[in-house]
Amino acid sequence: MKKEYCGLFGIYGHPEAARMAYFGLYALQHRGQESAGIVTWDGQKIREQKGMGLVADVFNEEHLGHQLKGQIAMGHLRYSTTGASLIRNSQPFLVRFKGMSIAVAHNGNLVNTYELRKELEEQGSIFQTTMDSEIIVHLISRYMNGYSFEEALSKAMSRIKGAYSLLILANDKLIAVRDPNGFRPLSIGRVGDSYVFASETCAFDLLEAEYLRCINPGEMVTIDRGSLISTSIAEIQAPSSCIFELIYFARPDSIVFGQEVYQARKRMGMVLARESSIEADFIMPFPDSGMYAGVGYAHESGLPFEMAMIRNHYVGRTFIQPTQDMRDFGVRVKLNPARSMIKNRNILIVEDSIVRGTTIKTRVKKLRELGAREIHMRVSCPPIRYPCYYGIDFSSKGELIAANHSVEAIARYIGLDSLHYLSIEGLLSALNNRQDFCLACFNGQYPVPPGPNCNKLCFEW
Amino acid sequence: MKKEYCGLFGIYGHPEAARMAYFGLYALQHRGQESAGIVTWDGQKIREQKGMGLVADVFNEEHLGHQLKGQIAMGHLRYSTTGASLIRNSQPFLVRFKGMSIAVAHNGNLVNTYELRKELEEQGSIFQTTMDSEIIVHLISRYMNGYSFEEALSKAMSRIKGAYSLLILANDKLIAVRDPNGFRPLSIGRVGDSYVFASETCAFDLLEAEYLRCINPGEMVTIDRGSLISTSIAEIQAPSSCIFELIYFARPDSIVFGQEVYQARKRMGMVLARESSIEADFIMPFPDSGMYAGVGYAHESGLPFEMAMIRNHYVGRTFIQPTQDMRDFGVRVKLNPARSMIKNRNILIVEDSIVRGTTIKTRVKKLRELGAREIHMRVSCPPIRYPCYYGIDFSSKGELIAANHSVEAIARYIGLDSLHYLSIEGLLSALNNRQDFCLACFNGQYPVPPGPNCNKLCFEW
Amino acid sequence: MKKEYCGLFGIYGHPEAARMAYFGLYALQHRGQESAGIVTWDGQKIREQKGMGLVADVFNEEHLGHQLKGQIAMGHLRYSTTGASLIRNSQPFLVRFKGMSIAVAHNGNLVNTYELRKELEEQGSIFQTTMDSEIIVHLISRYMNGYSFEEALSKAMSRIKGAYSLLILANDKLIAVRDPNGFRPLSIGRVGDSYVFASETCAFDLLEAEYLRCINPGEMVTIDRGSLISTSIAEIQAPSSCIFELIYFARPDSIVFGQEVYQARKRMGMVLARESSIEADFIMPFPDSGMYAGVGYAHESGLPFEMAMIRNHYVGRTFIQPTQDMRDFGVRVKLNPARSMIKNRNILIVEDSIVRGTTIKTRVKKLRELGAREIHMRVSCPPIRYPCYYGIDFSSKGELIAANHSVEAIARYIGLDSLHYLSIEGLLSALNNRQDFCLACFNGQYPVPPGPNCNKLCFEW
Amino acid sequence: MKKEYCGLFGIYGHPEAARMAYFGLYALQHRGQESAGIVTWDGQKIREQKGMGLVADVFNEEHLGHQLKGQIAMGHLRYSTTGASLIRNSQPFLVRFKGMSIAVAHNGNLVNTYELRKELEEQGSIFQTTMDSEIIVHLISRYMNGYSFEEALSKAMSRIKGAYSLLILANDKLIAVRDPNGFRPLSIGRVGDSYVFASETCAFDLLEAEYLRCINPGEMVTIDRGSLISTSIAEIQAPSSCIFELIYFARPDSIVFGQEVYQARKRMGMVLARESSIEADFIMPFPDSGMYAGVGYAHESGLPFEMAMIRNHYVGRTFIQPTQDMRDFGVRVKLNPARSMIKNRNILIVEDSIVRGTTIKTRVKKLRELGAREIHMRVSCPPIRYPCYYGIDFSSKGELIAANHSVEAIARYIGLDSLHYLSIEGLLSALNNRQDFCLACFNGQYPVPPGPNCNKLCFEW
Repeated sequence: MKKEYCGLFGIYGHPEAARMAYFGLYALQHRGQESAGIVTWDGQKIREQKGMGLVADVFNEEHLGHQLKGQIAMGHLRYSTTGASLIRNSQPFLVRFKGMSIAVAHNGNLVNTYELRKELEEQGSIFQTTMDSEIIVHLISRYMNGYSFEEALSKAMSRIKGAYSLLILANDKLIAVRDPNGFRPLSIGRVGDSYVFASETCAFDLLEAEYLRCINPGEMVTIDRGSLISTSIAEIQAPSSCIFELIYFARPDSIVFGQEVYQARKRMGMVLARESSIEADFIMPFPDSGMYAGVGYAHESGLPFEMAMIRNHYVGRTFIQPTQDMRDFGVRVKLNPARSMIKNRNILIVEDSIVRGTTIKTRVKKLRELGAREIHMRVSCPPIRYPCYYGIDFSSKGELIAANHSVEAIARYIGLDSLHYLSIEGLLSALNNRQDFCLACFNGQYPVPPGPNCNKLCFEW
Repeated sequence: MKKEYCGLFGIYGHPEAARMAYFGLYALQHRGQESAGIVTWDGQKIREQKGMGLVADVFNEEHLGHQLKGQIAMGHLRYSTTGASLIRNSQPFLVRFKGMSIAVAHNGNLVNTYELRKELEEQGSIFQTTMDSEIIVHLISRYMNGYSFEEALSKAMSRIKGAYSLLILANDKLIAVRDPNGFRPLSIGRVGDSYVFASETCAFDLLEAEYLRCINPGEMVTIDRGSLISTSIAEIQAPSSCIFELIYFARPDSIVFGQEVYQARKRMGMVLARESSIEADFIMPFPDSGMYAGVGYAHESGLPFEMAMIRNHYVGRTFIQPTQDMRDFGVRVKLNPARSMIKNRNILIVEDSIVRGTTIKTRVKKLRELGAREIHMRVSCPPIRYPCYYGIDFSSKGELIAANHSVEAIARYIGLDSLHYLSIEGLLSALNNRQDFCLACFNGQYPVPPGPNCNKLCFEW
Repeated sequence: MKKEYCGLFGIYGHPEAARMAYFGLYALQHRGQESAGIVTWDGQKIREQKGMGLVADVFNEEHLGHQLKGQIAMGHLRYSTTGASLIRNSQPFLVRFKGMSIAVAHNGNLVNTYELRKELEEQGSIFQTTMDSEIIVHLISRYMNGYSFEEALSKAMSRIKGAYSLLILANDKLIAVRDPNGFRPLSIGRVGDSYVFASETCAFDLLEAEYLRCINPGEMVTIDRGSLISTSIAEIQAPSSCIFELIYFARPDSIVFGQEVYQARKRMGMVLARESSIEADFIMPFPDSGMYAGVGYAHESGLPFEMAMIRNHYVGRTFIQPTQDMRDFGVRVKLNPARSMIKNRNILIVEDSIVRGTTIKTRVKKLRELGAREIHMRVSCPPIRYPCYYGIDFSSKGELIAANHSVEAIARYIGLDSLHYLSIEGLLSALNNRQDFCLACFNGQYPVPPGPNCNKLCFEW
Repeated sequence: MKKEYCGLFGIYGHPEAARMAYFGLYALQHRGQESAGIVTWDGQKIREQKGMGLVADVFNEEHLGHQLKGQIAMGHLRYSTTGASLIRNSQPFLVRFKGMSIAVAHNGNLVNTYELRKELEEQGSIFQTTMDSEIIVHLISRYMNGYSFEEALSKAMSRIKGAYSLLILANDKLIAVRDPNGFRPLSIGRVGDSYVFASETCAFDLLEAEYLRCINPGEMVTIDRGSLISTSIAEIQAPSSCIFELIYFARPDSIVFGQEVYQARKRMGMVLARESSIEADFIMPFPDSGMYAGVGYAHESGLPFEMAMIRNHYVGRTFIQPTQDMRDFGVRVKLNPARSMIKNRNILIVEDSIVRGTTIKTRVKKLRELGAREIHMRVSCPPIRYPCYYGIDFSSKGELIAANHSVEAIARYIGLDSLHYLSIEGLLSALNNRQDFCLACFNGQYPVPPGPNCNKLCFEW
């Protein structure tokens, strides 16, 4: 399963800042279900509440109505793929230095943490977590001798490499930063007199905030005493936004990198239909992943669209383990076919991506058992052949089925009558600013070279 | 919000009966989220576990692997609309009499409970709950003087009026009954050597059980020492199955009353398209309610199908209350439009039903704010004008918008450019056995007259 | 371990009745830790809250401040020794019949339940619990044909045999009853304009209520519209109050059966000193059981009193299991000797009673390991030789060490240099109204003959 | 209420190290109820589990049996008196630097944290907690350039001033340190082949470990590859052990500072009786505080000892708030007098100490209401006139009643007929090594001068 690391939300100058952050995180919950945290600044000190689990489980009225005082709030959602799931590694990351209270929320993955951590430890830094945020804070602290916080932050940015969208609460300032490549999204909006920041604009919609714009790659936006100051903290690189936000991760009602996700996915499906049409009784997605590309494919191809795989809306993350002989239970419990739609039919499935292929294989097998005559699949992205070092959990290269197998072999493995992937060219043609995306997972061209220790953890708790 | 009362599941002769019941209930969770219960018979005594909340919250491995011993199990899901939500009123209802341990699980609503309870109290019966099940058990107990349990059950059935699908565990027998009108569904299936019962066949699918057939109206099926005995307990009436199971309640991958729900809903949408076509840029449902009728409407009309309202999959039942000025928050948090699909578009919404109309009104208003040019709605059932006394919570007549307003007035209230409901004739043409349905909520013709005290509670805890 | 079954509390006519009941139960917590329940009458209907565990865990401010409305409240604490610990068997027991809402709280044990239940089942009664209370309510219901509730209650009392102190909430009346033998305690008090009932007067003290008197054996006290009516419901027997309330169960700051518990225990210790004096360096109790008899023994004997066994005040009922080689952990964790007090000393331990002797044996062994020279024990009650059928859990006769062994054999088993029990005569000389006690556990003379099915459960859930 | 800060436990080389730590903490629970934590070293990495609340609530079998792997374990209990109760401030404090994983558990209070923190922040250190432990670790890290961990620790010790007993897990070494003054206790023992450390020996007793000796003031004990190495890390000062451990805090079955607590308290009572005898009907303690001095006073004076104040053993830390008119409820619920012992009696109460006097005043008032004729009090320590800066929470000087009032005024305030405190000389005569104690709270002579910023927090979360 692909997993995005994090969701960010910030708000400056709102009488119910913590409550707004709560709802902002609520709208962003799909970006991280492991832990959630909110910090506020009440003019005097930072307040925090963090916990493992979903937003609705971590916070209660006591937190929102009483403890998390203040008009500035910042929230974070996390899904970790490295090491154990620990409250210790939840964010925002809170720290005190040089008389300031600092909270940092980070989305993305740095690629030179091993070297930085080693250097810092040699200089006497002590570490309490395995988070990138802690490294960033150590750097800022070291650079603050004679420099302002913003200057030190800027210097620290020049040392860290990789993907980072950051929200930083530094006493009474709220700062938003995106790395010079702009890997991960971060947008700014406005509700009443307050500025808001969010990874995706669906958080703005819920709060009825107005979307202003994307933070630019390499831009630092500081809200200080109600005013917005924009600074460039790095030479602007060729932007390399994560194309998987548009293919898969972001909510379809969001804008990320200035693009409407719904439209982008639909266009991917339309291009896919043009690249590889086929006769079938109908097209269908496996909800919700291929839903929007499926809609586009149906429009372009003229084939009927069906929702013949039914989702169990009560499937949470945990249930009692089934018995041994309930094969593939975890897959089957989520989606169940409407049987009458399957028997003797020629089915065209539109999927958004294939990572390992195991879940898809199980679903296709089930359709065969129910008597499907032909099963074809069209995938609205190119084969994923290379691991991501910037924060998408495609696991190791060994687990990426397209890294080691031809399209024909994948079709055979899954049990398909035909399989076609969208071309890179086709994918880009479905997007605006087609030159601004990272395509490393398709073509191995990494905008920021990962370096030899990129996957090495200094330690693990 | 319409609410169905209950889901039933039973299994006879399985080494992991409780675990199977757990997963059966898991698949039926949409039928009741208030409480869940499982009882088992271990050859000596009945074991039970009940609790408030979702199946996944009520049961743990200790319950399924150790406490709920036995090869016969029976489960129940409840959503109550009368009185407080009390563990006291959860089911299966467990009782001891005449040396037998009895558990009863009930789906439906009786219409003569007031009279029966009064009569029984006069004869010295004491009541510990407000559930129909308790009345049924008192009747059985009184009729057991000189009669077998099945005979007494049959006599009790002749006294109760209204809707009931029942599962009864009577020592080592598992009994399934449907009322003579067959209001509520109940099907029988087989997995290995075990018989299984469920309100809907989606529970069979999850367990890889084979669907055998519907229990017939007025039929009692007894599983005793592994054999199935079918008895008729009542003169068969003209069947009057609840048409709302097909319109709305049942999962689309289920079979109820012998009909494929997915196909039925799609056909309703197709008939609706024929009855009332209109020009629009696209049709869309409010997920998931109008989804399948929408698919059918799109097929028949040739209009593009879109999924422009995006569902937040993490919306649970409870979250912290928003501030006063976050209007309609509860509605907005569930569905958010993909904005670029709305502005300046002519939108045709396909809905499955309108009860009070308030939620729909809020959604339509939002679409207007986002710049929709025209908004039309087509509803895949006729106007709901009369309350249901058989177990569907349409609330009182005063809350049914179609009970008091013309279609034009409803369109105005909701803010639609046009509104059309499927005709009763059209609805029936989309179903098999069109004469076998209760249409009381549309036409006020109640198959079992409700009587003057039908809505009266004897008491409330 | 000896266990008393239950604690009762009731209050009539107080604006914060539920809260008072909460604190009343809090003071009585030692009488039952398995489950707790409170019901209130708000003039219209009964409200209830019950749960497994301690009073402080079962109730919250929401219950006391909002849900449990009304000026009459009744609470119950339970420790069960029969069957599983089930919420189903928690009290007060709530039921509806003949248009009345009834709640029953019971302390004690009936001895003819098997016969009564059988008879009632034959007449069509159904049972949902294994509690005596349910039988009592069925009887009342059957006797209400043409009779008032109080008359029916009185008739029901004539059918049940054994020990029962009852509190009954019958719509707007609060009724207190003690069985004709007066086995279990129940007192009446007054706070402001409100009448209060409690098993022990320590509940009155906490509420700053004034103690009025004991309910008499065979007396029914009804509080109706603020007035107290006393009725005799049975021919008064020779009272046979449970002597173990005074020896062990009741809190030492309570009055039960009209006697000061602290004084009674101290006098038992004084008589014990006169009956069996011995030289020792000091006397000590195992806290808290022998504490007050120990104080009395010290006064009479002139020996120094020490508290050399130290109690861990944080020992709750559950902790993680220790490893195999941590022998006797459960015993050692509760009490630990102050080592310097033990080595080379002649120790006289005063205990209140010996049931099985296993825990005492473990403690004495520990003292030997720490170098005690001589260990003597004096017990402030006679040998327990016969089981109790009226509500004290002395387990079966087989487990009572004194049922099968001589005092010498017991001393050898425990590892004592000498052992002496208080004589029956000595025990009675320490009490007022010496003729009014049940001595069955000492001499086997049962005031109410238990009958052949006394220990037989009709069924078990 | 006086509150001690912390309890420490460590074990080296035990196959069930975490489980042993759990039980060690269980025995030390009286030293801190706010949070509990255990860390283990499994040869590769540190594992941790921490949580708010009691030991029994924080850990479960999953933690002890599976997660907390390794043969070295260290645990900490905390009661905080500064700032909010935060999981962030729970211990052991875990950190990573110079390739080592370090855990620190601290009991005591430093007096130069403000200066140290300021200095460290200026050098670029960042802080994540308000705990003294974090400062200590920063210092060690800075001193490790070219020095071993132990050397750096030793240098760090030379910088910190105040009270600290420390347990440190540094990779595979377990290190115990006491400050040069030896303010807080720490003992070493042995169970099988394992070394154990604990704040008090009652933890050894529970584990059946053998008590070896006190760690000396200024001594560092390192267990490395199973061997014990003792080093002196500081010039030995005149020891100044906290005398309140013996008066009040330590469990009476413990040895601290090499002294038997039970004997010490009893001797204080005996000296007190000699210093100030008086006629009375009996002496009694308020359990458990004055219990052991009371026993000693009774021995010496020949007055009868009574336990006339009865403790409710189910009083936990939280209960629902009583109504306004239940005056002094929080005090009354814990102890209730046996009324018959009070009326018309001359009572002599032995207490261990008086801090603010408010609780005692309430209890004395209650005894007056119950008719006590005379009430005298004898206190087994001198008047507490000065605040403690080394870890005992006597709150501010303003709250110490003896700081501002004469003994006569205190007696009047409390409502006593007479009051006498043990003299400093008398107190010391009851102890061994009478010159080795800190008496600052009595005489204001602080062994380590607290300095101007001693009570200043750098910041608060």
